[in-house]
Amino acid sequence: MARVYNFSAGPAVLPEDVLKEAAAELMDYQGCGMSVMEMSHRSPEFQGILQQTEEDLRELLAIPDTYDVLFLQGGDTLQFAEVPLNLSTPRNGTAAYLVTGQWSKKAAAEAKRLIEAPVVASGAKTNFSRLPDCSALTIPDEADYVYLCENETVHGLKFPELPDVGNHVLVADQSSMFLSEPVDVTRYGLIHAGVQKNVGPAGLQIVIVRHDLVPASELDGVPTMLQYRTHVEKRSLYNTPPCWNIYVCGLVFKHLKSIGGLVAMHERNREKAQLLYDAIDASDLFHGAVSVPEHRSLMNVTFVTGNPELDAKFVAEAKAAGLLNLKGHRSVGGLRASIYNAMPLEGVRALVRFMQDFERDNR
Amino acid sequence: MARVYNFSAGPAVLPEDVLKEAAAELMDYQGCGMSVMEMSHRSPEFQGILQQTEEDLRELLAIPDTYDVLFLQGGDTLQFAEVPLNLSTPRNGTAAYLVTGQWSKKAAAEAKRLIEAPVVASGAKTNFSRLPDCSALTIPDEADYVYLCENETVHGLKFPELPDVGNHVLVADQSSMFLSEPVDVTRYGLIHAGVQKNVGPAGLQIVIVRHDLVPASELDGVPTMLQYRTHVEKRSLYNTPPCWNIYVCGLVFKHLKSIGGLVAMHERNREKAQLLYDAIDASDLFHGAVSVPEHRSLMNVTFVTGNPELDAKFVAEAKAAGLLNLKGHRSVGGLRASIYNAMPLEGVRALVRFMQDFERDNR
Repeated sequence: MARVYNFSAGPAVLPEDVLKEAAAELMDYQGCGMSVMEMSHRSPEFQGILQQTEEDLRELLAIPDTYDVLFLQGGDTLQFAEVPLNLSTPRNGTAAYLVTGQWSKKAAAEAKRLIEAPVVASGAKTNFSRLPDCSALTIPDEADYVYLCENETVHGLKFPELPDVGNHVLVADQSSMFLSEPVDVTRYGLIHAGVQKNVGPAGLQIVIVRHDLVPASELDGVPTMLQYRTHVEKRSLYNTPPCWNIYVCGLVFKHLKSIGGLVAMHERNREKAQLLYDAIDASDLFHGAVSVPEHRSLMNVTFVTGNPELDAKFVAEAKAAGLLNLKGHRSVGGLRASIYNAMPLEGVRALVRFMQDFERDNR
Repeated sequence: MARVYNFSAGPAVLPEDVLKEAAAELMDYQGCGMSVMEMSHRSPEFQGILQQTEEDLRELLAIPDTYDVLFLQGGDTLQFAEVPLNLSTPRNGTAAYLVTGQWSKKAAAEAKRLIEAPVVASGAKTNFSRLPDCSALTIPDEADYVYLCENETVHGLKFPELPDVGNHVLVADQSSMFLSEPVDVTRYGLIHAGVQKNVGPAGLQIVIVRHDLVPASELDGVPTMLQYRTHVEKRSLYNTPPCWNIYVCGLVFKHLKSIGGLVAMHERNREKAQLLYDAIDASDLFHGAVSVPEHRSLMNVTFVTGNPELDAKFVAEAKAAGLLNLKGHRSVGGLRASIYNAMPLEGVRALVRFMQDFERDNR
C-alpha cells in the first residue's frame, strides 16, 4: 500500500524524507558500523547527535542561554507532576491553573494531588467549545506559576495570544503545537512538550526551563529522576536516554531548518488550516466544534456533522479512501483532523475534496 | 563500513535480522501505509503489536497469569523509586537491600530517600570483586521486600543462585541479564529491566509484578504515572507509550522464540562466556576482575591487564580492528566485554583472537 494521509492526533505523521533517512541508516549510522539503537549513550557518536539536536532546537526556537533544554523520559503526562514538584513545592506550594480542555484539566487534577492548585479560569461551562475569558485573571499573589495548555489537542482550541499573568511565571504545555510556529520563549518560565505530535517518535519529552527556576538543591522525598536539577547537571545524560527517539527528533529539526525554520512552517500550517476551516465554514453538513473562530487550533481541527452515525460513516469511508484517523477523541466524539507540520498540503486538499464528495452523497 | 562487533554494556548490539526487518518496514508497517513511529497508540495495528509483544514475553519467561506485565517509560533508574513507593510505602515502609555493585548501590541509595532501607549484605569491603556471603541473611521481619541486582553490569557479577530470603518478597533488577536465560518468575515478587541491554532500544522498561503486590488504591502524594496500579488498570496504555521501542522489543522476542527460546539462548550465552573466560584464565596478561569464578556474569565480562596505559592501548587497537566499546565502566576502569544475547559467537571468537595477538605483541 502507498503511504496514507494520517490525521492521527499523536503519535502522528512524520516527514517522509526523515523516515527515508532513518531507514537508510538504521543498520549503520554514518559508517560507524552500528545502529543508533545499539550505540552507547556515552559514545562520541551519540554525544554528537545529542549536542547537535539541542543546538538545532535552540536555533529553531531562538532559546536564550538562560534556559536549559532537557530531553526527558516518562511520558509528557509525568510533567503534570514534575512541574509542581520542581517549580512549586520548594517555594510557596501554590500554582494557578487555566483549564481549557482535557489536557489542562488532567494537569490541574494531578497538581491538586501535590500542591494547592486553584483553577482561575475554566472553559467547562461552555464544554470547552471556546476558551474562557482570560482578560482579567485573578491570580493569587503566592502562585508560583500560572499553567496553561496552549493548544488543546482534544477540543481543537488554541490561545490566539498569551493571557496577561502579570509578574507570575508562565508554564505552558505546548505538546500539540510544538515547533509549529515561532514563539517567544522569554515569555515563558517553562515549556514542556511530548514529541509524538509534531516532532518525533513517542517516548521523549522536551522541557525548556528558565535556569533560575530549577531548584538549586535536592528536593526531599522527590524521586531523583523527577528532579529537573538531576538532568540539568548531567545534560540529559544522568541515565540512558531514549537515544533513537532523540535521533529522529534531531532529523526532524534538521528538516525544519532546511525548509526555512518556524516562520516558513507557520506559513504552511496557516495555509493548511485555512483551507480546511474554509471548507467547514462553507459546508452545510460539517460544523466547526469551536464556537469562536479566533480560538481555533491550527493543528487539531475539530468538526461534527451533528449525527454520530454519519460521523462514523465519514470516518469509515475516509479510511477506505486513504484518509486515516479522522475520528474525534473518544471523550468528545465527532471528527478531528490533526494537520501537524508533517501533513502535506496535498493531504488537506485530499481531505477537503473527500468532504465535498461526502456532503454531496449524504445530503 | 561493515557492521562492527559492538561490546557496549548498553545500549547494545541487537540481532541483525531484527534490524533488517525494522529497516524494511520502517516506512510502511505491514502494508498499513505508515510507520510504527506514526501510529496512534490506540489504533488496531499498535494494539496488535502491544498484545503480541506481551504474549511472546509471557511465553518466553513462562510468566503466570498472577503476574502483571508492564511496559513503562522513565528510565529503569526510575524503578529505584517506583519499587519502594509502590511496594513499601503503603505497607511497612522498610525494605532490605543487597548491595553487590554499582546498580544495587544506586537502588539502595534512592530507596533510603523514600523509606527505611537497611543494607543486609554488601560487597563494598571487597570492592565488589565478588558477591558478599548471602548464606545467612538477617532480614528485618517488617521488610516489605528484599532487593537485589541479579547481574551487576559494571562489576560483571551474577548471583549463581538466588539467596534464601525466607518468606520475604524478592525484587530483582534483571536489566543486564533479561531474557538471557530461563528464570523461575514465581520466585520473584517483582522483576524490572531496562530493555537497552538485551532486548531493544533505550527508552522502555519492563516490570513483571505479582498482582497482589500492586497497591489496590491510589497512593497519596505519589505521581499518578509512578503508580503501578495506573498502568495495570490501563494495560500500559494510560498515556502514549514508547511505541517504536515496544515494537522493536517485540521483534526481538519473536527472534528469540524462533531460535528456540531461553533454553537455547542460555546455551549460546554459556558457550560464548566460557570461550572468553577460558581465554582470560589461560592468559598471562589479562586477569578476570571477579575473584570467584562462580560469581562471574555471563553477560558482562570484566578483566584487566593491571596497567591502565596498556588497557587504553588495548581498547584503541581493538577499536581499529572492529571490536568496539571494550573499555570498563568509567567508575572502575579496566576492560569489559558485554556479550549479550545478540553478540554472535564469531564476535567473541574474534575478540579472543585479538586478545591473543595483543598479548603476543605486548609481552
